[in-house]
Amino acid sequence: MQISKFATPEIIFGNESLSQVGESLSRLGAKKVFLVSDSGVLNAGWAEQTIKYLQDSNLDYHLWTQVTPNPKDYEVHAGAAEYRAQECNAILGVGGGSAMDAAKAIALLGTNDGSILHYEGVDKIVRPLPPMVMLPTTAGSGSEVSQFSIIVDSERQVKMAIISKSLIPDIAIIDPQTLMTKDRRLTANTGIDALTHAIESYISLAATPLTEVLSLSAMRLISQHLRPSVASAYNLEAKQAMAMASLQAGIAFSNAILGAIHAMSHQLGGLLDTPHGEVNAILLPYVLEYNYIAAPEKYVKMAEAMGENVTGLSQHDASQLMMKAVTNLTRDLQIPVTLSELGLQPEQIDRLSQTAVQDICMATNPRDMSVDDVKALYQKAL
Amino acid sequence: MQISKFATPEIIFGNESLSQVGESLSRLGAKKVFLVSDSGVLNAGWAEQTIKYLQDSNLDYHLWTQVTPNPKDYEVHAGAAEYRAQECNAILGVGGGSAMDAAKAIALLGTNDGSILHYEGVDKIVRPLPPMVMLPTTAGSGSEVSQFSIIVDSERQVKMAIISKSLIPDIAIIDPQTLMTKDRRLTANTGIDALTHAIESYISLAATPLTEVLSLSAMRLISQHLRPSVASAYNLEAKQAMAMASLQAGIAFSNAILGAIHAMSHQLGGLLDTPHGEVNAILLPYVLEYNYIAAPEKYVKMAEAMGENVTGLSQHDASQLMMKAVTNLTRDLQIPVTLSELGLQPEQIDRLSQTAVQDICMATNPRDMSVDDVKALYQKAL
Repeated sequence: MQISKFATPEIIFGNESLSQVGESLSRLGAKKVFLVSDSGVLNAGWAEQTIKYLQDSNLDYHLWTQVTPNPKDYEVHAGAAEYRAQECNAILGVGGGSAMDAAKAIALLGTNDGSILHYEGVDKIVRPLPPMVMLPTTAGSGSEVSQFSIIVDSERQVKMAIISKSLIPDIAIIDPQTLMTKDRRLTANTGIDALTHAIESYISLAATPLTEVLSLSAMRLISQHLRPSVASAYNLEAKQAMAMASLQAGIAFSNAILGAIHAMSHQLGGLLDTPHGEVNAILLPYVLEYNYIAAPEKYVKMAEAMGENVTGLSQHDASQLMMKAVTNLTRDLQIPVTLSELGLQPEQIDRLSQTAVQDICMATNPRDMSVDDVKALYQKAL
Repeated sequence: MQISKFATPEIIFGNESLSQVGESLSRLGAKKVFLVSDSGVLNAGWAEQTIKYLQDSNLDYHLWTQVTPNPKDYEVHAGAAEYRAQECNAILGVGGGSAMDAAKAIALLGTNDGSILHYEGVDKIVRPLPPMVMLPTTAGSGSEVSQFSIIVDSERQVKMAIISKSLIPDIAIIDPQTLMTKDRRLTANTGIDALTHAIESYISLAATPLTEVLSLSAMRLISQHLRPSVASAYNLEAKQAMAMASLQAGIAFSNAILGAIHAMSHQLGGLLDTPHGEVNAILLPYVLEYNYIAAPEKYVKMAEAMGENVTGLSQHDASQLMMKAVTNLTRDLQIPVTLSELGLQPEQIDRLSQTAVQDICMATNPRDMSVDDVKALYQKAL
């Protein structure tokens, strides 16, 4: 039995909880808030509402929205320069994983020197970060509770994982109503991202009973509620369930880390700027099949969590049902099924495989993986 | 859907994690540590080991062990005076719920003025507390993760619940090896206390999907591992499972609060200084029966978590199985079955019932309870 660690931010969850951003930041000593958001959130009106609540709490603010999906190192550097120029002392991220990861990276550079590239890996952060509040508007990334920030190294074209307890926000505010303005493709992609977090954290070598129970619960909620959530932007019950699923999967993976799917999709995201959830969805069945022999008894538990009836089935047959349930879900959501559809060329696989085995998420994958194993999986998914 | 809040300390879990007390306190800025412990912990050698690790981290310390089960207001006042006189700047609690609750109350008075009696109720604490690390040596109270401190008002002879996010320790260190020096009666009592936390938090009006999944997991672990843990002081696997169960139940009840069993047992503990777990065990079946109509579907889930086969059963019959499983467990552990065995006199019931309905834990009980309802339950359990 190894020693395990577990940490989460303070969590505020529920419809209208957006109204607590001002009070939450005030409690943390904020005077001027650097608000990181993106154009989608702006268009949906959430940034405007957020600013109103900041003003109600007499907080000064500076809005910054120069962040793209799969946030880039140069965007983070520009943001950090603006954070300092504006003399802010706290960070608020409102958006999906990209906005929140960028916000966390900017917070990092708010109190730590040099380039964001220096902080790749585990526990490289020296000085405490400014107060951070995160409000997710997609149900997928889990960045609002995680110790991860994923930033693209634009020169190497890879996604760097920056991992540190310092990156766990102080307060996560989750308001399911903000999910009602997502389009169906984003709803599907981010939902599959959350499912991948739940699955990879559950079979991770670093899983603990505390994370496992959250991973399984997230799988249960996603199996029941992701389809109706994609079907209707107005199904608030489904949005609430998906917000909770994403939160639980986020807490689980932040503490149990992930596996080969994320190690492989980070490379694709860095090279081709592909939507993270879609890549995960395409890789999922192949990596699940590969990992199965590492943890067959866990596959049976996952099958049950996903609503399959495993009574009287062998471990092998129950595991097959689990993998089938995943495929059925991604098919029902009409997610692309091959990496070539996202623009991957066969000649790029060698390079991706070399970097994938070095990704930090590979260390907790339950089955050993060589460069050739990774190549074979990319090829299957091509 | 109401807005819910969720908070936990940083958690370090595993055999030998005791070795991290010094480093953990240093990280929090401790210079001189006020170490709260009790005679049982001293005799078992855990305080000595703890002190060694504090010294390894070059931390000064002052050991204070003047705390009794069901800690009293005057003990807390004496401890706080000594904390100030010794010029400590951090608190470490090593022991069961009594030592940890006393440590938290002393921390409260370390930075806040007046008598501990002024802080009864919710959110009465004004100033931030000194850094706190808690290391439980029983698997039951959950105080290491909770926002509760339960202190006896010695004049009124009632247990006061002090509830505040400020009472959540900074770091909880859970080392299952420390459970191997508990006697069987304490193992059984504290295990039933954890079960009561799991059950009451699960059916609480303030339960959320985040707490429910932890409550159910705790019930599952306790049903499987409490008997073997009581059977052998050396069964480390059972100790680990019970440590995890107590932790999960602690996180759940800290965030979902409790119910009538705790409201009623607090009064008995205040009046008769009775072992908290034993009172809970005696009250459990009666209050479970009373509460059943408030949440029958939750009783079915609890039956499943406790290992009962509910296939094909009606809600009513499955719920009966759950209640039977609880009674079987307390009977197997040879816990007293009546309150008279603990010294309760029939003429004391009126007074206890009056104060029980005012206990803060009553507010989240799923079924309404009048003074007469409480009386009837005390009488049944007499």
